[in-house]
Amino acid sequence: MIDDLPAGFGARRLDEEDHLPVLAVLDSWWGGLKGPAGAKERALLLPRLYFQHFTSTSFVVERDNGEMAAFLIGFLSQTEPEAAYVHFVGVDPALHGRGIGRALYRAFFALVREHGRRHVSCITSPQNSASQAFHTRLGFTTSAVKPGYDGPGLDRVVFGIDLGAGARNSGA
Amino acid sequence: MIDDLPAGFGARRLDEEDHLPVLAVLDSWWGGLKGPAGAKERALLLPRLYFQHFTSTSFVVERDNGEMAAFLIGFLSQTEPEAAYVHFVGVDPALHGRGIGRALYRAFFALVREHGRRHVSCITSPQNSASQAFHTRLGFTTSAVKPGYDGPGLDRVVFGIDLGAGARNSGA
Repeated sequence: MIDDLPAGFGARRLDEEDHLPVLAVLDSWWGGLKGPAGAKERALLLPRLYFQHFTSTSFVVERDNGEMAAFLIGFLSQTEPEAAYVHFVGVDPALHGRGIGRALYRAFFALVREHGRRHVSCITSPQNSASQAFHTRLGFTTSAVKPGYDGPGLDRVVFGIDLGAGARNSGA
Repeated sequence: MIDDLPAGFGARRLDEEDHLPVLAVLDSWWGGLKGPAGAKERALLLPRLYFQHFTSTSFVVERDNGEMAAFLIGFLSQTEPEAAYVHFVGVDPALHGRGIGRALYRAFFALVREHGRRHVSCITSPQNSASQAFHTRLGFTTSAVKPGYDGPGLDRVVFGIDLGAGARNSGA
């Protein structure tokens, strides 16, 4: 399902039972970014609906012992026929630098290409410089900070990538 | 686009420019339910992505002067081929009892039936007794309170309705 994972890791589709385990890792993986308000904000961005209705374009990476190592939650745009969106990605910080995040994105790109999607976008908070560096390395363009992008006080940076013309035929 | 609206009101598809206006009405329409934390919670449940990627199954009702009267934001489940989900509905409380909420749901049901969907679900907070009464009148079943359904401290009540077999062919 996902190529290029390090030895000792496996991938599978997200499912509804992953909801609470994903919420449980958010605080430790994000290192308390923006404090308790940040923790609440992250939980509210991941209501159960994502774990029910968008599992077919979302992945979990686990260690061989079943412990969660990373996840990616994305979807196909229902409005824009050539667009897909990555809503939330997390990688255990102890595993950063091992290519797991990159492998998750590659798997998502391959999957959405099969659905004819070429434009992929996602956002992060202006404080998350690690996310901005990571997406730049993956080839995303990065916007300037957009004040109030997700509502009053919810500033965001927007990432975008064009997977190229003929996305449907370009394989994985 | 929506039948059964009172005179003086019109409906259209949601679009990205509706994001801030919708957030702006939430506090007044919800009457400050659950205080400032409730307001923040509602804003975080409506990030811009819904106004970009799920507009084709979402509606705005406006007064003839262009003032927002109601909205419904829903989507087709990407995972469950017979399911659709209503993520957020708001009606100006000054207009309650005039059938606008019911008209929005009927329009959503008709639209998702055209896509072969028969199961529609949505959630509310246990404190929102008006929402529970409204959904019951529409024919939804209501669950018991589900503690932590959307994460720690985020209890929910779940509504469900079966639009019936042969949804694709039953018309509007």
